[in-house]
Amino acid sequence: MAKYIYLFKEGNKNMRDLLGGKGANLAEMTKLGLPVPQGFIVTTEACISYYENDEKINKNLINQINQAIKNLENISGKEFGNAKNPLLVSVRSGSRASMPGMMDTVLNLGINDEVTEGLAKMTNNPRFAYDSYRRFIQMFADVVMEYPKENFEHFFEELKEKKGIKNDNDLTTDDLKEVVKHYKENYRKLAGKDFPTDAKEQLIEAIKAVFRSWNNDRAIVYRRLNNIPSSWGTAVNIQEMVYGNMGETSGSGVAFTRNPATGEDELYGEYLINAQGEDVVAGIRTPEEIRVLKKIMPEVYNEFYIYAKRLENHYLDMQDMEFTVEKGKLYMLQTRSGKRTANAAIKIAVDLFNEKKITKEEAIMLVNPNQLDSLLHPTFELDSLKQGNIISTGLAASPGAATGKIFFTASDAIAAYEKGEKNIILTRLETSPEDIEGMNVAVGILTLRGGMTSHAAVVARGMGKSAVCGSGDLSLNEDNKTIKTKDGQIFKEGDYISLDGSTGNVYSGKIKTTKAEISGDFKTFMSWVDEIRDFSIRANADSPNDAKIAKEFGAEGIGLCRTEHMFFEEKRIEAFRKMILSDNQKEREVALGIILPYQQKDFEELFREMESYPVVIRYLDPPLHEFLPKEEIEIQKLAKDFNVDIDILKNRIEDLKEFNPMMGHRGCRLAITYPEIAIMQTKAVIEAAITVTKEGKKVIPEIMIPLIGDKNELKYIVDIVKATADKAIEKANVKLEYIVGTMIEIPRACVLADEIAEYADFFSFGTNDLTQMTYGFSRDDAGKFLNDYYKKNIFEFDPFEKIDINGVGALIELGVKKGKSIKPNLEIGICGEHGGEATSIEFCYKIGMNYVSCSPYRVPIAKLAAAQAKIKRS
Amino acid sequence: MAKYIYLFKEGNKNMRDLLGGKGANLAEMTKLGLPVPQGFIVTTEACISYYENDEKINKNLINQINQAIKNLENISGKEFGNAKNPLLVSVRSGSRASMPGMMDTVLNLGINDEVTEGLAKMTNNPRFAYDSYRRFIQMFADVVMEYPKENFEHFFEELKEKKGIKNDNDLTTDDLKEVVKHYKENYRKLAGKDFPTDAKEQLIEAIKAVFRSWNNDRAIVYRRLNNIPSSWGTAVNIQEMVYGNMGETSGSGVAFTRNPATGEDELYGEYLINAQGEDVVAGIRTPEEIRVLKKIMPEVYNEFYIYAKRLENHYLDMQDMEFTVEKGKLYMLQTRSGKRTANAAIKIAVDLFNEKKITKEEAIMLVNPNQLDSLLHPTFELDSLKQGNIISTGLAASPGAATGKIFFTASDAIAAYEKGEKNIILTRLETSPEDIEGMNVAVGILTLRGGMTSHAAVVARGMGKSAVCGSGDLSLNEDNKTIKTKDGQIFKEGDYISLDGSTGNVYSGKIKTTKAEISGDFKTFMSWVDEIRDFSIRANADSPNDAKIAKEFGAEGIGLCRTEHMFFEEKRIEAFRKMILSDNQKEREVALGIILPYQQKDFEELFREMESYPVVIRYLDPPLHEFLPKEEIEIQKLAKDFNVDIDILKNRIEDLKEFNPMMGHRGCRLAITYPEIAIMQTKAVIEAAITVTKEGKKVIPEIMIPLIGDKNELKYIVDIVKATADKAIEKANVKLEYIVGTMIEIPRACVLADEIAEYADFFSFGTNDLTQMTYGFSRDDAGKFLNDYYKKNIFEFDPFEKIDINGVGALIELGVKKGKSIKPNLEIGICGEHGGEATSIEFCYKIGMNYVSCSPYRVPIAKLAAAQAKIKRS
Repeated sequence: MAKYIYLFKEGNKNMRDLLGGKGANLAEMTKLGLPVPQGFIVTTEACISYYENDEKINKNLINQINQAIKNLENISGKEFGNAKNPLLVSVRSGSRASMPGMMDTVLNLGINDEVTEGLAKMTNNPRFAYDSYRRFIQMFADVVMEYPKENFEHFFEELKEKKGIKNDNDLTTDDLKEVVKHYKENYRKLAGKDFPTDAKEQLIEAIKAVFRSWNNDRAIVYRRLNNIPSSWGTAVNIQEMVYGNMGETSGSGVAFTRNPATGEDELYGEYLINAQGEDVVAGIRTPEEIRVLKKIMPEVYNEFYIYAKRLENHYLDMQDMEFTVEKGKLYMLQTRSGKRTANAAIKIAVDLFNEKKITKEEAIMLVNPNQLDSLLHPTFELDSLKQGNIISTGLAASPGAATGKIFFTASDAIAAYEKGEKNIILTRLETSPEDIEGMNVAVGILTLRGGMTSHAAVVARGMGKSAVCGSGDLSLNEDNKTIKTKDGQIFKEGDYISLDGSTGNVYSGKIKTTKAEISGDFKTFMSWVDEIRDFSIRANADSPNDAKIAKEFGAEGIGLCRTEHMFFEEKRIEAFRKMILSDNQKEREVALGIILPYQQKDFEELFREMESYPVVIRYLDPPLHEFLPKEEIEIQKLAKDFNVDIDILKNRIEDLKEFNPMMGHRGCRLAITYPEIAIMQTKAVIEAAITVTKEGKKVIPEIMIPLIGDKNELKYIVDIVKATADKAIEKANVKLEYIVGTMIEIPRACVLADEIAEYADFFSFGTNDLTQMTYGFSRDDAGKFLNDYYKKNIFEFDPFEKIDINGVGALIELGVKKGKSIKPNLEIGICGEHGGEATSIEFCYKIGMNYVSCSPYRVPIAKLAAAQAKIKRS
Repeated sequence: MAKYIYLFKEGNKNMRDLLGGKGANLAEMTKLGLPVPQGFIVTTEACISYYENDEKINKNLINQINQAIKNLENISGKEFGNAKNPLLVSVRSGSRASMPGMMDTVLNLGINDEVTEGLAKMTNNPRFAYDSYRRFIQMFADVVMEYPKENFEHFFEELKEKKGIKNDNDLTTDDLKEVVKHYKENYRKLAGKDFPTDAKEQLIEAIKAVFRSWNNDRAIVYRRLNNIPSSWGTAVNIQEMVYGNMGETSGSGVAFTRNPATGEDELYGEYLINAQGEDVVAGIRTPEEIRVLKKIMPEVYNEFYIYAKRLENHYLDMQDMEFTVEKGKLYMLQTRSGKRTANAAIKIAVDLFNEKKITKEEAIMLVNPNQLDSLLHPTFELDSLKQGNIISTGLAASPGAATGKIFFTASDAIAAYEKGEKNIILTRLETSPEDIEGMNVAVGILTLRGGMTSHAAVVARGMGKSAVCGSGDLSLNEDNKTIKTKDGQIFKEGDYISLDGSTGNVYSGKIKTTKAEISGDFKTFMSWVDEIRDFSIRANADSPNDAKIAKEFGAEGIGLCRTEHMFFEEKRIEAFRKMILSDNQKEREVALGIILPYQQKDFEELFREMESYPVVIRYLDPPLHEFLPKEEIEIQKLAKDFNVDIDILKNRIEDLKEFNPMMGHRGCRLAITYPEIAIMQTKAVIEAAITVTKEGKKVIPEIMIPLIGDKNELKYIVDIVKATADKAIEKANVKLEYIVGTMIEIPRACVLADEIAEYADFFSFGTNDLTQMTYGFSRDDAGKFLNDYYKKNIFEFDPFEKIDINGVGALIELGVKKGKSIKPNLEIGICGEHGGEATSIEFCYKIGMNYVSCSPYRVPIAKLAAAQAKIKRS
């Protein structure tokens, strides 16, 4: 029979999976001999069994609970329901991972009419006793029975009003007795039976309530955001109550062993005299800084200080502790690794190493990779920010602070940029691929429509530019070129605004920003990461400027250079549109010939920037209709420019439209119908490589063919690419090596990766498209239903943020295995957005890839995740 | 060292893979002692090696050819290039499968100036000799050197014109000498060197030409249409020439052992006196029926008759033979299984069994399943057809003949149908989902736009209705409701036209049709198929009428009833649109409540029709926007009907639009956001089943949830369905069993089929969508590039017609294996269009499925394919 209950003294800190974090640490503190009010833990397995058993508690568990109560009564010398010596307990959730405030807590359990009277006598504090009783009924009704809070709060507030009282503490004992009376009646009406007076019954119900709270809405959302599987379940901690509200020599506090904001090595926390822990959290009174304790109860402070240091040295990490002082005696109620800012996390890790307490590997494990994000984008200077007025709040679509002049069209933005304006905020209703150049010259993007996966959001994140999307409370007048705020302020072209892409706030006027840089402890820390790491990190970069940033952040190559934006610049787009609209190869070749020198120049700059590093260049990928104008007026202009009949032009545009563009004529399929595009791109890449090689720099071009699903597609294009490239290299008479590989982003390519590997020098998994095809939903459209999926607990996480290891991951693993079965040394990486996400990086590392490629701004995050993956494996 | 050459006497009929069909049969006839001009065969392996070796012939093969020539010289007693006793040969292709006329042939090889002179003397027929020489140069230049034919034909035609001659045979020897002279000069100009006089050189080049012809455009297309892999390669047959053009006692013929049109047991063929085989085929003179030979050369006829019978009995199949008589001596040049009509195929198979020559299994293997198609659709009566005038030819989009009055909108068609008009041809520019009801009441569909995969074509095939699509030479006037032909004829609403969906022809007026039925030999044959077969065949049927046809054709259940068209009928669509456009569950439930009784009635009829057979009902699948109007005028009407602001309505419609509808909010995703839809459909299915059960009929409902990609999706919906169903059954107090399963049509569902199987009572593979997702292209959009894929030999076949066994098939197999790992007896089938295609059926059978489901009209085809799959395995 499964053991579902552990006494505190039976556990230890390594039993987190079974006892939850809180439980395991209570057990560990008990083991260390710290003063911990004793109790027992209902295991996570009991919770899992509860869910498997149609949300029922089995007999076996009930028996074990009864036995545990007896044990606890023995340990504490108190007794459940005994008015003279009552045992009261707290019931708290505690899962494997910390989920603060997500689940439910019940305090003062075990109380009833007689026990309250007994307690009043024992403590000589009837007000305290009845207040505890009132609180318990209210909590039980809310948490366990799930009755709306108003049922109880209304009466309480009315009473206070009637009495002319503002502060709860001013209610008298009699008032509280009246409250209790009313609450019990109210409960009887709602429940159809009396409030349970039996402590055991109260306990069983409370345990069930904690189990249920594992699946409440906020817990589900929190798990999704923090990658916590729903299968873990929660443990339940039952602990003897101690009271910080027994007078001036009692109190409650929370403290960190180091400063969680800065990482400074100092005890940091708060203490509230004559209060329970809940009061500290609830903010009814303002707590004092922890050092107050040093003055008023120096022995208690010293004792606590010793425990704090001991716990930090024991856990080898900064601790976040809760404690209570009951009549001058200190009790430790909780310890856990403390949440901290990114700066603090790095400082603490570096300091603990310098203090010789931990190894470099342990230091690396102390920092959460995702947290680094906040250190890698520009931020507003705090003083300057105080002057800013928020004029709108949208979605925090792409992190970082930006300040600049607003422009309302891509072409206006470009014109301003060409006149020397370097601080541009492109402001649009929503963006489309035609706006790419405008986005490229802007420092920030603001849209009024669209969500986290809108074009603007996705492209801005890719470019590492600040973006606020879906600011629906602004209205945009396209004719006048103005935006108007809810309260009627108007901003016109050229006016300054500021965006915080990390919060979604939009401010009026100019706010000073500070550039992100890797220095000090951060630099030291990253040097350790590089020392340990054995997995390469490249960046996705479409321009020499992106590449420069990538290098600054430590990228070891370009894993994805999308060439499509190279077609969007004004002179090129005209030629490219000619190419698209012409119906013979000759004309297409002429049009492509116009684009060639521009593209070649782009590649030259990229190769110079990335000297000695590999640069993966992906050939044209999007469907051609994305390059054609959509608005009537633009189509008219194009017809005039090209001197073609507008109806013919419209028909041609209509012909190119697709039912499902994502599954249409794009990727390698373009190069198969129009090999001249692949030939032009090969000439541009190879001639650029030749030029830079002749300058004495080492160039490592890796040509990548997108959207391959069949070996014959790849063979056809590789033949063309190699014939073109080899001819150019032979003619130039330089020593230049290049490789040609493919993206694996179609399920069929994973299944047949062995066949494809025959013609590929490398694989790069395009996990964005692969996720879409494997799930059969497009990212753009899934927004409409995925929220329902999260709400109904059908999906636990967003597969576009984190690789779906079971499904998509199985295909990736198959692809890697099959690819390596043909070419054991095949270079394999990923270049989807997952390349910057920690759990995905760990997965890629585990299955034997060579690198991941991510946004330049996520390179340090990826490096840290890679180093952690290595440490975890070893 | 590989053996690349076999003399005829070294081979036999079982060596098709290596020697090709023609070669293996020449060898077999040699073995049987039939008079075959001797020769040798270059193997298919030599061809494969030629392609692997960058289209070069290796030394080893050349040596073996030289040796083979020596052997042939010994056998024939003639000598290559010897003017006195010249050996001339034919060089013919011959692959594993018969590909008539697809590849190249060179005759009279070995000829040159001296040999021509020698031949003239030997045959005493200089005209014949120079004509042969002239032909050889022309053929060599065309086939081997690939010079455009005009280079030679122009001169030949000019000469005839100059001489005032119409018939080639009227050219004199001197004329032909002039032709030869000019040809040789012309050749020198084109090639930059003399015409090759060396027989061996001629031969090597001719063999290479035959190898090359394996990959000519028409061969690639033929292979795709006939499922022949390009990896097979072709063999080359080199055979001593014999001459049917040596006078009145010479001639050439082709004959079948039975009548290939009817299957009658009679020698059937043609004979041409004093002619070569080419002349029979080319149709220069009209050949006589084969019995003429009986009169003019009875011994030769008798000899041939004996050989014919012997070959048929030897091969146990009807044979198609070529022969030549040279100066009274019979030579057999070829034998192969003869092509035949479907009727003939069945009669021959049944007769051969009745003649006790073959077993039932062998009889079954003699009929090509795909051929049955022509027997399963209405056809025009031949006499009546003669009176029809073709007014347009479009694509043969859905087979069968139909005659009726034209109507131009779905609503006009429905109105006419409701007034009693049973013969309606719905004629549209193109169709959309809104036209479904109109299509449903029509006997045939004609569209002016769209291809083989257009909406009209796909739906018509699904409904088994005749359809001609993309008849672009007609013009349609929507206002006047008329169509106009190229030559100005006008047809107005109510005028009769006739369609042949098997040819694409559109006729003016009424033409009598004959309904397809299974009777006579066909019935006998199908009874054997049912006897042997151990694999169930169901049909896809959306209506009671479809189900009736399916049962007539022998379906053993409904494998797919799509419920979406049940929402399209006028009264229902209005309610359904209300449901879509309302923003709260209450309103949605009210709207669905209106549809419920209609849908229930549909199911009742279906269950009655399919008594005792399983009926798989798929829940609503398409995205909701498909149900909303698209045209401005319809939207206005809807706004008026619903009394809502048109802008609000338009916004809502806009909101529902999707970037990639195939990957959008559809399938099970609808039931997750709107569980009320699944509840309504469950009520309709189960209440219908209860009603029909109470009538004393056995009902086997199988509820199918589409587009599942995750076990949690299925669990969520199955819980809803079962709760609703069980409640209804309990209330009705009847004994009714139902199962709930899922379509597997998303790659992720294959990868995680074990998890999904936990919640599924059955799997049905939706191979249409699975193919789309696995390849990452949509069927609608792929039309734009797949032609280039076929042309460039990247794809050999259309994965939407035939399951892609290596890629999609691997996922299916994985899904089956994983599903059965959890539930060994899990019912598994497929319901994509592949369910009616023979190779796909064989695949499904092999990997352990229980059934396939296909269009009602393809049920006999599927049954035959299933029986053949079993026979092949055993």
